[in-house]
Amino acid sequence: MERRPHVVIIGGGFGGLAAARALASASVTVTLIDRRNHHLFQPLLYQVATAALNPSDIAYPIRAALAKQRNTRVLLAEAKTIDVAKRRITLDDGSLDYDFLVLATGATHSYFGKDWSHLAPGLKSVEDALEIRRRVFLAYEAAERESDPVAQREWLTFVVVGAGPTGVELAGALGEIGLHTLAHDFRSIDPTQVRVLLYEGGDRVLSAYPPKLSEAARKSLEKRHVDVKLNTLVTRIEGNSVTVKSGDTTTTVGTRTVLWAAGVEASPLGGDLGVPRDRAGRVEVLPDLSVPGHPEIFVIGDLAKMHMASGEQVPGVAQGALQGGKHVGKIITAETRGKSTPAQRRAFKYWDKGNMATIGRASAVVATKRFAHHGFLAWLLWWAVHIMFLVGFRNRLLMMFHWGWSWLTFKRGARLITGQIGPLPAVTTIGSDGKVVLPAGAATVLLDRDPPKSVAESLDV
Amino acid sequence: MERRPHVVIIGGGFGGLAAARALASASVTVTLIDRRNHHLFQPLLYQVATAALNPSDIAYPIRAALAKQRNTRVLLAEAKTIDVAKRRITLDDGSLDYDFLVLATGATHSYFGKDWSHLAPGLKSVEDALEIRRRVFLAYEAAERESDPVAQREWLTFVVVGAGPTGVELAGALGEIGLHTLAHDFRSIDPTQVRVLLYEGGDRVLSAYPPKLSEAARKSLEKRHVDVKLNTLVTRIEGNSVTVKSGDTTTTVGTRTVLWAAGVEASPLGGDLGVPRDRAGRVEVLPDLSVPGHPEIFVIGDLAKMHMASGEQVPGVAQGALQGGKHVGKIITAETRGKSTPAQRRAFKYWDKGNMATIGRASAVVATKRFAHHGFLAWLLWWAVHIMFLVGFRNRLLMMFHWGWSWLTFKRGARLITGQIGPLPAVTTIGSDGKVVLPAGAATVLLDRDPPKSVAESLDV
Repeated sequence: MERRPHVVIIGGGFGGLAAARALASASVTVTLIDRRNHHLFQPLLYQVATAALNPSDIAYPIRAALAKQRNTRVLLAEAKTIDVAKRRITLDDGSLDYDFLVLATGATHSYFGKDWSHLAPGLKSVEDALEIRRRVFLAYEAAERESDPVAQREWLTFVVVGAGPTGVELAGALGEIGLHTLAHDFRSIDPTQVRVLLYEGGDRVLSAYPPKLSEAARKSLEKRHVDVKLNTLVTRIEGNSVTVKSGDTTTTVGTRTVLWAAGVEASPLGGDLGVPRDRAGRVEVLPDLSVPGHPEIFVIGDLAKMHMASGEQVPGVAQGALQGGKHVGKIITAETRGKSTPAQRRAFKYWDKGNMATIGRASAVVATKRFAHHGFLAWLLWWAVHIMFLVGFRNRLLMMFHWGWSWLTFKRGARLITGQIGPLPAVTTIGSDGKVVLPAGAATVLLDRDPPKSVAESLDV
Repeated sequence: MERRPHVVIIGGGFGGLAAARALASASVTVTLIDRRNHHLFQPLLYQVATAALNPSDIAYPIRAALAKQRNTRVLLAEAKTIDVAKRRITLDDGSLDYDFLVLATGATHSYFGKDWSHLAPGLKSVEDALEIRRRVFLAYEAAERESDPVAQREWLTFVVVGAGPTGVELAGALGEIGLHTLAHDFRSIDPTQVRVLLYEGGDRVLSAYPPKLSEAARKSLEKRHVDVKLNTLVTRIEGNSVTVKSGDTTTTVGTRTVLWAAGVEASPLGGDLGVPRDRAGRVEVLPDLSVPGHPEIFVIGDLAKMHMASGEQVPGVAQGALQGGKHVGKIITAETRGKSTPAQRRAFKYWDKGNMATIGRASAVVATKRFAHHGFLAWLLWWAVHIMFLVGFRNRLLMMFHWGWSWLTFKRGARLITGQIGPLPAVTTIGSDGKVVLPAGAATVLLDRDPPKSVAESLDV
């Protein structure tokens, strides 16, 4: 048997998975590696963070997704370096030689050089989502136990940094949690006192959308008691406060929960290719999505930056990665069949199907080339599209069920705090009459005390 | 307004929750504390561990379960000590004074004095279940990467210690995962080579059931390729092996995954009551479930040991805890209404509704006073009863869906590995032909190498 070319795909996100599937009938051996065992439907990750969905509703084992594709192997492994001269990828503890390489490792959070990752978690992985869920629902529990009204207010203040789709979706869901989900569950706090602050450096939310929709989204957020602060930059984050600057005004707000949705940075692996990258670390690819000087290496998805003939740029969304993966898979299939050569490659053409983001229950914005819409119909469309694109039939049914149920009942079913609980705040003393009391003589101690360090620290872990 | 008596319930399991509910109409203030925010339907926890269900399918926020009960407050807190003279509970950082105390903190794993908790996790909490899930599915991933056949066999050998209901259910599910769930997902390993070993010190599985059912369960396990070893004691567990003793024979089996279902130990809080406890730490309670000398303190559930007039003992199952909680709630309600006195209390009477355990797809055993049954009908009954008892309507529907789907498709939907992945085994080298190769000259190194310590260690974290 003749030797089949070996295609290595790094990353099992939308791009990597699409590339693998497009190679199903090619006479190649495909190895897809990912450091996680699951493909993640990232656009819905905020629903896991806000307890509306379970991780397995939006994640699916990569291995299972490709089980029937006999020319493909899936390995749980992390690529450490790429040697483009030797055509070799180094793993923790082994190596892979390739004939074709598809690099689809995506992007991670960027804190613009600041050391804020523990203070303000971002939302990229299932673990991130569960950590955010833990912090949000633990903050309510802490507020319920808190006898110092200042600290209680800090626990009930939630800050989201960045008003792109993820930030808007998170803030909208946090507002709804305060207004509806937890409205009747507490005794010592009034969950309607919850404050959600959404800080955005630019002058509108959802800046990739038409201004009309940005305004609709802002109004919809404010209906959910989200305080939208535009033209505002975060300059400092601590365990119990965030400091922001707007024009010449600097403000410090007490909060125990800050979520980061402000910036992304491409995966560092692109640096090994020895080709130009932009400031965010994205690899500048040729029109066919290969890199200069290496027709055997393709970069797709969030890791790639492409200048299309039209001047338009492929946005960092699922559709861009999916279409890129399919394009690359077709090129490799054709060339390994001898039906095409690198010189004959066609340029990648992004088909913009439009953008959509949801703000909350029955509210979303949808923008395509032909129309811009917001409100309930936009939300129905958002819902239908997201269910359609989910991997796996079972997930689709489950999602419909989860969402239908959440919508009818205002409940969020996955409201579990797992992992380390850590020390909770403050002194809770409940007398034999069942009322929270400050022990005689202890009132001043309680109110004068330093911010409870143990709590702030435990949440920073 | 007159002062209402303060009832403190420690523990939000079956017993604590039932006690709180039975106090709904009493003129008392109830404070339920638990160190977790969720009530857990523990009998189905093994389904989370084996990826058939999501955590939130079987867990529910305690706060939400009691939200409508206006005389009840829920606090996320851990009780540290009980001062029975002062009627005061000390928390991490505060205290609770009580008029009545209901202690329902349950039991945890017992390793009989051995330090095996990291080597052989048990199954009591959501975190335990996710850790077991992580280890089981990571073992398959590791085996897929493993080029040393000895180590690969270790990764594919799963050991369960203890053949009570939890052990039997875990072992049955592990067998089915190898036979069905993962049958087509791998390239380098044959998942049907999976070995599941179930070690039991006694002479039959499910010793609380009639011998006929034990035998049926054993046969059913063996159909699932579970190797049942009776009269066998585990004497040593290491990162890549387990040593067992049967009669005079000592055997060491290579395995990377050992799960513990062998013993339980009551929560240590019972020790503060200053009353007799049995060897497993259970508090010896009076017929009314209060403790000697303290009519205001009740102990229920797995923490309690009761000698009923019949000589029969209340088993450590959900029903025992539920009925005990209800009994105690009724006593407190009556006495705080002035309708009864401690001298008039009735003895708790356990209504044995029977026991059931499932071995796998369409196989279960059910034993009541009137009949003993096994097979498909028993499984249907098991399924109906477990759905009925789940807290919350949404969970019931979801469970039916999850199970129906799993049953039809042999799939397990929640097969995600989350948390730390850790270094994976061995050297994986895949040449440009896509085949796993040992680098020239490296073969001996590979086969002679020490057990990969990094892996064993990382899994022990």
